[in-house]
Amino acid sequence: MSALERVRAAYARIAEVDRPEVWIALRPREDVEADAAAVDARQAAGERPPLAGTVCAVKGNIDVAGLPTTAGCPSYAYAPKTDAPVVARLRAAGAVVLGTTNLDQFATGLVGTRSPYGAVRNAVDPAYVSGGSSSGSAVAVALGIADFALGTDTAGSGRVPAAFNGVVGLKPTFGLVPTEGVVPACASLDCVTVLARTLAEAERALSLMSAPPARTLPPLEQRRPGPWRIAVPAPGRLGELDQGWAEAFGKAATRLADAGAELLPLDPAPFIEAAAMLYEGAFVAERYAAVGAFLDAHAGAADLDPTVAGIISGARDIPAHRLYQDRAKLSALHTRALAAMGDADAVLLPTTPGHPTLAEVAADPLGTNARLGRFTNSTNLFDMAAVAVPAGEVNGRPFGVMLIGPAFTDERLARVARLLTAPPVRLAVVGAHLSGQPLNGQLLALGARLVRPTTTAPAYRLYALDTVPPKPGLVRTREGGAAIEAEEWQLSAEALGTLLAKLPRPMTLGTVELADGTFVTGFLCEPQALEGAREITSYGGWRAALARTGGPGPA
Amino acid sequence: MSALERVRAAYARIAEVDRPEVWIALRPREDVEADAAAVDARQAAGERPPLAGTVCAVKGNIDVAGLPTTAGCPSYAYAPKTDAPVVARLRAAGAVVLGTTNLDQFATGLVGTRSPYGAVRNAVDPAYVSGGSSSGSAVAVALGIADFALGTDTAGSGRVPAAFNGVVGLKPTFGLVPTEGVVPACASLDCVTVLARTLAEAERALSLMSAPPARTLPPLEQRRPGPWRIAVPAPGRLGELDQGWAEAFGKAATRLADAGAELLPLDPAPFIEAAAMLYEGAFVAERYAAVGAFLDAHAGAADLDPTVAGIISGARDIPAHRLYQDRAKLSALHTRALAAMGDADAVLLPTTPGHPTLAEVAADPLGTNARLGRFTNSTNLFDMAAVAVPAGEVNGRPFGVMLIGPAFTDERLARVARLLTAPPVRLAVVGAHLSGQPLNGQLLALGARLVRPTTTAPAYRLYALDTVPPKPGLVRTREGGAAIEAEEWQLSAEALGTLLAKLPRPMTLGTVELADGTFVTGFLCEPQALEGAREITSYGGWRAALARTGGPGPA
Repeated sequence: MSALERVRAAYARIAEVDRPEVWIALRPREDVEADAAAVDARQAAGERPPLAGTVCAVKGNIDVAGLPTTAGCPSYAYAPKTDAPVVARLRAAGAVVLGTTNLDQFATGLVGTRSPYGAVRNAVDPAYVSGGSSSGSAVAVALGIADFALGTDTAGSGRVPAAFNGVVGLKPTFGLVPTEGVVPACASLDCVTVLARTLAEAERALSLMSAPPARTLPPLEQRRPGPWRIAVPAPGRLGELDQGWAEAFGKAATRLADAGAELLPLDPAPFIEAAAMLYEGAFVAERYAAVGAFLDAHAGAADLDPTVAGIISGARDIPAHRLYQDRAKLSALHTRALAAMGDADAVLLPTTPGHPTLAEVAADPLGTNARLGRFTNSTNLFDMAAVAVPAGEVNGRPFGVMLIGPAFTDERLARVARLLTAPPVRLAVVGAHLSGQPLNGQLLALGARLVRPTTTAPAYRLYALDTVPPKPGLVRTREGGAAIEAEEWQLSAEALGTLLAKLPRPMTLGTVELADGTFVTGFLCEPQALEGAREITSYGGWRAALARTGGPGPA
Repeated sequence: MSALERVRAAYARIAEVDRPEVWIALRPREDVEADAAAVDARQAAGERPPLAGTVCAVKGNIDVAGLPTTAGCPSYAYAPKTDAPVVARLRAAGAVVLGTTNLDQFATGLVGTRSPYGAVRNAVDPAYVSGGSSSGSAVAVALGIADFALGTDTAGSGRVPAAFNGVVGLKPTFGLVPTEGVVPACASLDCVTVLARTLAEAERALSLMSAPPARTLPPLEQRRPGPWRIAVPAPGRLGELDQGWAEAFGKAATRLADAGAELLPLDPAPFIEAAAMLYEGAFVAERYAAVGAFLDAHAGAADLDPTVAGIISGARDIPAHRLYQDRAKLSALHTRALAAMGDADAVLLPTTPGHPTLAEVAADPLGTNARLGRFTNSTNLFDMAAVAVPAGEVNGRPFGVMLIGPAFTDERLARVARLLTAPPVRLAVVGAHLSGQPLNGQLLALGARLVRPTTTAPAYRLYALDTVPPKPGLVRTREGGAAIEAEEWQLSAEALGTLLAKLPRPMTLGTVELADGTFVTGFLCEPQALEGAREITSYGGWRAALARTGGPGPA
């Protein structure tokens, strides 16, 4: 797909999804198409820009030349002369920018509703919040408009919306990605983040956004050899969670263990106590330092979000000595947090304690928001890196977890997170892939494991197909069906996709009902293959048919 | 699958493949089953041994209690009192050991034919060599007998057989895995390696084999931010290669670039010059130090491989001053190699320059072997780590490449290697997944990219199915078929497997022929869904049918 075709598909998708609140400013379509044509021309000239053919969205507090930088506040807007360096880097790498996305005003909020450009509805369930403050960026990615999007993260703004919309959010180590051209929230904590649908896409974009930071890259301590060690708090130590949340978190931890990680217990108290300091303590004064003068000058303006204005203006009178006290308290909590981690490679936490509806946030703007930051708020205060990934669903909505680790362990965290994003899948086999049959080695070579011998539901017919090697064709039938001998195997989604990509005609893979009423992926066949094929249903299975008919084959 | 069931499947597979030369000693089946039952009992008691349910094979130069350690030479055999520490660790982690595998005698060779226990035939094409010296281990894994296997690697013995049999071989940094209980080849270079069918399985086993090494773990230098930087020599600088080898190597490099890596040019001369020193120079005297006295005492014995005995005995009279000279020369080459790498994360090389037949090796035992080590021999001399992975096929046989990097970059190398092991696949869609149709977002959310609009070969019929949302069913037909509008998409095998695992009845995925005669994975449906469905072939495609019939649905 050319960059131009990709851009056209993005505009078609924007029209299709009808979520105008995602955007603060879309660039003129002719400009975007011209950018795409320029990328295509670079490729035609033999260049290989690494992000050629991708489109991205940029959070509305990051400079994009030609668009106003609003930070979610129209009266604050200014016209940047140039792209922020991070945007310029992505463009140089071949990405095409669609426009700027909605956010909680001045990146102050985790809900995605604090904006005069409208509350951003959740990508999966529009009655629920998108999460914020990088709300529009997360939804633009989740809905398949953009391939990736830039966010920012001070208290969880790049991770909470990732969790709520089922996408990946990378919160890199502070300083790895330049923040010039970004409206500060808390300048000493702000990180530019990337949101994408897969870890691979997110990491690829991040690798092109990063640069040697102001501080020298320190050597990374070698980890002690052995399996990944992941510190996991007992759900009972996480405070109150939404219904189903503890179970979903437990499943994520189990998946890490099943993938070979060693789980260590963790007392999350220092992480949670530090989180509370971000808004309750003196640190919020850094937000006043950033935009307080503007707010004072525009007090009462119609386009100020009252919740955001209240929070930031309320920080005007915090005395500096409280900041000294809070710094000392934070330092002690940091020491406790590192001690709690021990030599774990990462901490596993739910990204949030729950997921509120738009109505719940409207009814209690401060309380719902404060609760959302329980697990994310302390990461940047502790100078740590984080990776937020989807980890299943609760009540049909995305559930997400975070892996948090020391500064500069970004790649390690992403590597561990991959264990969570590739859950194994099931496959029912009824013929040449059964244990001991000629193609069973294909499953073994893909790392598949036999789960159990079983049978299909009594709703299938079996036919001997004219294939080499001989294979049976399984067909669902309304009448005259039998339970057919089957084996249920477990394998990675990648292995299943690899098997499918090499599957010869006339075999197909679809959904097969097993004896216990569960439905799993399984071998079927094309209808054409059944023409003239001998029915062998009465044998009850392929092995029995082979044994009774004195050999394979359709004859 | 319980550990006991896994063991039984392994024995069934051993009988099925009929490759007796893979093994030097299989443990008594009752002992192996007792081990497996003990693992199952640990699990029943609530323990979670990380390798429970896996079976492994151990190269015949590593101690396994209860079996003779032969190093491929029956008269050298001794009965170890205990497992080598690396074997003990794997057992403690729940792996069950099947037995010891065949090898080039005294781990001296890269061919897999230098053994009185028989030449080990290639897993894929028995007329070709398995590669060595970890020959039996690689073939046991490739044939699906063992989940993983231990090898050793001094000059490439853990990587060459991985390449020839299409499996993964990890050559860890020297010292990360203990070598106590391993018959030395060159004690200052020997590494215990792991062979497995997937990177994930290999890394998991390796993580449980490693331990804090004798030398303190040094801090790892942070890499400069940015995409992976891979140093790749032009094929013309690699010396003569087998037919098709240069193209396959080029494809592997392109795949890295397509996955976002930056390719840097590399002069491979210092790597190749150092490789030649391993047998041609004084370093071979270290092999004499290990087993020379034994060979002298048993000169002419029938179970000595004459090639191996000649190599090692020939080193007896190498003067020590030549070793000093060679060390100085190697040091200079090492400096040149590091300079050639610059700040690249890894070097990409073919694992070998070619793949000889058993007959070719028999005709020229020394020449074929020396050629095989051209790219592998220098890795251990330079104290580097390596990951060997499959990278497609040449003439129907596996082709493999290596990523080589500085000591202690093992994990980084495996991470880059993953980019090579997951090539994208194609998918043809004809209905609700077409661009702009209701389920197209599923493809976008999986990171799929449109390759091109096209049509099927003129051999298909299309039916309107009774599904929600409305979908068409594509059916191959012998007569009356038409070219049906289609789109060809590209996505990862993992994404394809994920799509398949969630595919609802009656849809299936099989192989569809496109207009240009290529066959790709594509949407089909179960035969039952066609009962009573309205044929819409004449519209030429789903979009046209929707437009002309005033709306979707089977009515």
